[in-house]
Amino acid sequence: LPPLPDGYHIRKICSDDYGRGALEVLKALTTVGEITNKEFEHTIETWARHPEIYHTLVILDLSETVVAIGSVIVESKLIHHCGKVGHIEDIAVRPNQQGKKLGCTLIRHLIKIAGSLDCYKVILDCDPANEMFYAKCGLSKAGTEMQFRF
Amino acid sequence: LPPLPDGYHIRKICSDDYGRGALEVLKALTTVGEITNKEFEHTIETWARHPEIYHTLVILDLSETVVAIGSVIVESKLIHHCGKVGHIEDIAVRPNQQGKKLGCTLIRHLIKIAGSLDCYKVILDCDPANEMFYAKCGLSKAGTEMQFRF
Ligand SMILES: CC(=O)N[C@@H]1[C@@H](O)[C@H](O)[C@@H](COP(=O)(O)O)O[C@@H]1O
Ligand SMILES: CC(=O)N[C@@H]1[C@@H](O)[C@H](O)[C@@H](COP(=O)(O)O)O[C@@H]1O
Repeated sequence: LPPLPDGYHIRKICSDDYGRGALEVLKALTTVGEITNKEFEHTIETWARHPEIYHTLVILDLSETVVAIGSVIVESKLIHHCGKVGHIEDIAVRPNQQGKKLGCTLIRHLIKIAGSLDCYKVILDCDPANEMFYAKCGLSKAGTEMQFRF
Repeated sequence: LPPLPDGYHIRKICSDDYGRGALEVLKALTTVGEITNKEFEHTIETWARHPEIYHTLVILDLSETVVAIGSVIVESKLIHHCGKVGHIEDIAVRPNQQGKKLGCTLIRHLIKIAGSLDCYKVILDCDPANEMFYAKCGLSKAGTEMQFRF
């Protein structure tokens, strides 16, 4: 696994990461909205009720501020001999922390979790503009993402 | 929701669908391998332990044979105000049953489940060759799928 800058560390998300700026980081990716501390805790608790499925990591800097966040959702299937697939989701790096390879380091940790849980593959969807970034992290182009918006 | 052919019906998967040919249908999609009745039941039980997350439907014909299968995995997120996304997975139609719109009907039912559970969108990944099919079912192109194979 690639090393983190001195003093940075990576660990599972916890409810207190609300106060450490976890949601600000996600705002670099997409719409987050106004989420209260209680709503944040509720989602962390939902994830904790399914510990085999939801795995969210955060990277913190020296000041204990969240600088990167990302998840892998482990799905149990019938195909591939009742195989499992890891879905990498909601990868975001704090804008002023880019260029430190935090995104790739996070992805490698999430892939490691999926591998240790016996996934036969890990997939993610991204903007075509980010294909190069994910290719540098070791992923390759697989298919097309289609969506239906409510 | 589009109608099914006379005598066909759609319902949640159950353990007994092993004997109704559910796995043969999945073989139209990809590698399935030799799965025993016990292994099949184990996956159905895994899904049943997370009823908010896993939703798998089957379409059966008059002879109670599985002719189509598909899932939607409902993921809880932080983004989009603690929103949810439905991941449509493992859609397969028995080859001799194609041309009856069973695939689209199945997708519409899965989208309905995701909507009723408050998902803000439903996504799926497919071979670029199948984009047209999913477009006919009401989905539109969104992004690129990237993968890492173990
Ligand atoms: C690898 C990665 O982080 N991909 C993300 C996906 O996880 C996230 O859920 C989505 C949000 O987009 P949305 O706001 O349009 O739903 O953006 C990107 O596709
Ligand atoms: C909409 C749909 O059904 N998409 C499927 C996906 O759900 C399935 O898991 C994958 C298996 O491919 P694999 O055998 O290469 O993992 O094929 C397709 O992308």
